[in-house]
Amino acid sequence: MIITKTQISDMEKLYKAKLINSLSGFKSANLIGTINKKGITNLALFSSVLHVGANPPLMGVLFRPLSAIRHTYDNIKETKHFTINHVSKNIYQSAHQTSARYDENTSEFSACGLTEEYSQTIKAPYVKESKIKIGLEYVEEHHIKANDTVFLVGEIIEAILPDDIVNADGYIDLESAGTLTISSLDGYHGTKLINRLSYAKTDKDLKAL
Amino acid sequence: MIITKTQISDMEKLYKAKLINSLSGFKSANLIGTINKKGITNLALFSSVLHVGANPPLMGVLFRPLSAIRHTYDNIKETKHFTINHVSKNIYQSAHQTSARYDENTSEFSACGLTEEYSQTIKAPYVKESKIKIGLEYVEEHHIKANDTVFLVGEIIEAILPDDIVNADGYIDLESAGTLTISSLDGYHGTKLINRLSYAKTDKDLKAL
Repeated sequence: MIITKTQISDMEKLYKAKLINSLSGFKSANLIGTINKKGITNLALFSSVLHVGANPPLMGVLFRPLSAIRHTYDNIKETKHFTINHVSKNIYQSAHQTSARYDENTSEFSACGLTEEYSQTIKAPYVKESKIKIGLEYVEEHHIKANDTVFLVGEIIEAILPDDIVNADGYIDLESAGTLTISSLDGYHGTKLINRLSYAKTDKDLKAL
Repeated sequence: MIITKTQISDMEKLYKAKLINSLSGFKSANLIGTINKKGITNLALFSSVLHVGANPPLMGVLFRPLSAIRHTYDNIKETKHFTINHVSKNIYQSAHQTSARYDENTSEFSACGLTEEYSQTIKAPYVKESKIKIGLEYVEEHHIKANDTVFLVGEIIEAILPDDIVNADGYIDLESAGTLTISSLDGYHGTKLINRLSYAKTDKDLKAL
């Protein structure tokens, strides 16, 4: 079937959200931890975390329109720090529950049964139950005019993860850490490695690593 | 283990790339098809396609630094159109091979054994072998100063996909379409659905859909 621009425009709102959210493919599943100046923590599920670059080490997050309530964004602007914590099977229901509309004086950590953990370096809370955790500092942001969203970039200050999932070449075995992937608004998937492939060259065949 | 900012900075280049590329979690696996004014087509693998919004329907792509050769970016700027095509198991090796450095007069379609397909609406070529295909038009772009990359946003003009993978509520069953997900620079994974979860509310328990 071909779905046209006009058909998309005419779709019921939630139907459209589920359909269009599916089209980009599988998404990362991360909890972003922050704290405000009053010391109230916040934890929110994001499927819009993106690798931005390795040198310097950067990650990006797309935030909803400025008109919506966005405690995570506001806290990052206040304190400059945030944490990104991988969602795995043991915590995916708690992670999903953080997307409920708790008021700003309620921490999703306690409301959803997850545990705050702190490092020496980053003011924002990590999720203790998460196996792969990254601490970041605000770098820059960009306002997407077409829909009033914000793409925010942070620099990786530290990463906390088990030793035994980092391969000799630097590849992190996300699958053995149990990291999940998200489809559309609400689908949670485990993964099964098919292959790692060698660096592609125009004059050589690919090999499975 | 804790990996510090200084340790990251001191890492060997490829090790660092594989490690930092792993930290954002699982990534989307898409082929972007474009054509230049001379009619030469280009096809390139991207793991940096991001859902930007449903209303209007928008997707974003992060491009490498302006200093690198970027035929895809240049072609989009020339013709305003591009296609995003999901990578599934039957084409993942060809998809990976598109990342080899072919010169600008060689189309990755023919070089990598994939087939061009055209719609009435979009100038850029689709990948015939891909099950989920999206045609987009350039909207805006943002220059990430921290590493000279570009985040480009396009509007969805049409989507081409099998009827039987769109659920009654708009959710697209990417798994039954065989869409893969990528880890780090070179890991290709199939997925296995754990659950879809109901919309989270502060006063209700989650249900599996």
